[in-house]
Amino acid sequence: MSDSQTIADLGELGLLQRLFRFCPGDVIGDDGAVVALPPDQRLVVTTDVLVDGVHFSDRTTSPTDVGWRAVAANLSDLAAMGAVPVGITVGLSLPGHTPLTWVEGLYQGMAAGLTRWGGVVLGGDLCRADTKSVAITALGSVRPERALYRYRAQPGQAIVATGHHGLSRAGLELLLHPERSAEVAPTDRDRWIAAHQRPQPRFDAIAALWDDLGTAADSTHIAAMDSSDGLANAVLHLCQASGVGAVLQADSLPIDPAVAAWVGRSQAIDWCLYGGEDFELVLCLPWPAARALQANLESDCAIVGETTAAIGVELQSTDADPPTILSFSQGFQHFAATCQPES
Amino acid sequence: MSDSQTIADLGELGLLQRLFRFCPGDVIGDDGAVVALPPDQRLVVTTDVLVDGVHFSDRTTSPTDVGWRAVAANLSDLAAMGAVPVGITVGLSLPGHTPLTWVEGLYQGMAAGLTRWGGVVLGGDLCRADTKSVAITALGSVRPERALYRYRAQPGQAIVATGHHGLSRAGLELLLHPERSAEVAPTDRDRWIAAHQRPQPRFDAIAALWDDLGTAADSTHIAAMDSSDGLANAVLHLCQASGVGAVLQADSLPIDPAVAAWVGRSQAIDWCLYGGEDFELVLCLPWPAARALQANLESDCAIVGETTAAIGVELQSTDADPPTILSFSQGFQHFAATCQPES
Repeated sequence: MSDSQTIADLGELGLLQRLFRFCPGDVIGDDGAVVALPPDQRLVVTTDVLVDGVHFSDRTTSPTDVGWRAVAANLSDLAAMGAVPVGITVGLSLPGHTPLTWVEGLYQGMAAGLTRWGGVVLGGDLCRADTKSVAITALGSVRPERALYRYRAQPGQAIVATGHHGLSRAGLELLLHPERSAEVAPTDRDRWIAAHQRPQPRFDAIAALWDDLGTAADSTHIAAMDSSDGLANAVLHLCQASGVGAVLQADSLPIDPAVAAWVGRSQAIDWCLYGGEDFELVLCLPWPAARALQANLESDCAIVGETTAAIGVELQSTDADPPTILSFSQGFQHFAATCQPES
Repeated sequence: MSDSQTIADLGELGLLQRLFRFCPGDVIGDDGAVVALPPDQRLVVTTDVLVDGVHFSDRTTSPTDVGWRAVAANLSDLAAMGAVPVGITVGLSLPGHTPLTWVEGLYQGMAAGLTRWGGVVLGGDLCRADTKSVAITALGSVRPERALYRYRAQPGQAIVATGHHGLSRAGLELLLHPERSAEVAPTDRDRWIAAHQRPQPRFDAIAALWDDLGTAADSTHIAAMDSSDGLANAVLHLCQASGVGAVLQADSLPIDPAVAAWVGRSQAIDWCLYGGEDFELVLCLPWPAARALQANLESDCAIVGETTAAIGVELQSTDADPPTILSFSQGFQHFAATCQPES
């Protein structure tokens, strides 16, 4: 039966034929795709590799969700640069025993993400390997005066985070330990699992930002990054790139109250700062712009702290405890032996 | 000692720090790279994945050569589209026990290729995996009227191949069976191994083509493809995309006489047609353009046959044998269990 057909049964050319239907007719079947950019825009390029057993697994992620997340992770980087999607390339490494249905599911998930946010599959490569991996390069375009960089934060700016942070980590916990689902409300469970399986790049937040600032505004006084490796990592990178420090307020962190009620406040803060894969945006903005964005996005945006001239990133509690100093070494490191949530 | 330092010892951030020196300062350290294309040019995008044990191995390829070949394979696709390089992204999957020297060697090889042909490292991603793989996306630019496609061959055109074909396969044979080196002249040995380890994308042939055709010429009557999967595969793809057939002349195939003297004419023809990884160009051209290109490139270019209105690709011998019908199924297929030269 066709459900058990593997890609080795089909062969490379047979598999390519099946995948061509996910690509526009004018970009396939050549050595490369030829793409016209909108005039007066810059090209933005970003790459992410997702590996089976590291970034996804059959235990927690269907092939369709792997495709969606792979696109979302890359497009989130485009959003963080202020760009809109043009397209992606897909470098796929697969064992020969991979079911055809897995590969088609992957492409269905990618196509769903591209339909949602824009962009097309511009090409790719297929390759035999022992482990499944998906290397995506996303291309976007941006008006040069509206490109968002990490290095433009200035002391005394508001640090803004979109959405809640830690939801993807909470969803993963429920996927890895289904028996814990009984501990939480079904609506929270579904919301957190969706946050893990179907993250949403925040193009809407960038549109809202420019909407607030008006047509003449540019990105000179804005710094931005996505929070794919956690909120703490994003703040640390923004500060390092800009040569500033930051004070974050523990009480202002964008924690979902239901997560805190479930795992306790301390664990919720840890997931918020270090859980990663929320694919939200972290921005350093002049205070009026931050307040306008918060008003525009309503509860979906938090002012979590302020940049400082003094180097170092501190997390302040309201109680009498001394502030915690945040560092990269507390975060997620791919080649370290521990602290990999999905391995 | 530092020679035995692994990337797990160094950690992701430490490794990134070491690799940043291979990237221009203005494109690193952000969610994506921002690139300005030359005005009035189209973007060309192409992707290739190289996997340890499939496309390279420590037995036959140093890390520097892996880097060079990865860049050459991608840039060869740009050359086949008529484009010049803008840059590459590098998605790297590595086991934690990979020596730092391997990764630095890889980047040195990539940097050497980019220095030779143009383009910069525009970014990338690092990821833990059981098997080493290198996913490269190359970006190039081309004037739209000079973009080269596969589908534009017309019946009655000359089929032109640059360089010799089968040299990379001959070099691989010597790397896999060093004891056979005694059978060939040292200069041939070095030349074939260089063809395998240090392939050269044929940007020079495209420049020569336009040089011949003059400033007003466009690509309307030209079809082109690179021969990364062998000469037969390239001709088959060009014919399929253009809806034409072809007759190739066995006596005109671009075989190195020294290869034929070593392994026999029949084996040399097989390597020429199916060996792959020569990264030469195959073009369908009006006869005057083909003759001019041949004159311009001297012995480094062969007219190997002619396109036909009748579908099908035939190889004709001078003797009384019936022609051989060429097909994709004879060629290299990644997911088939056999016929993988390096596995």
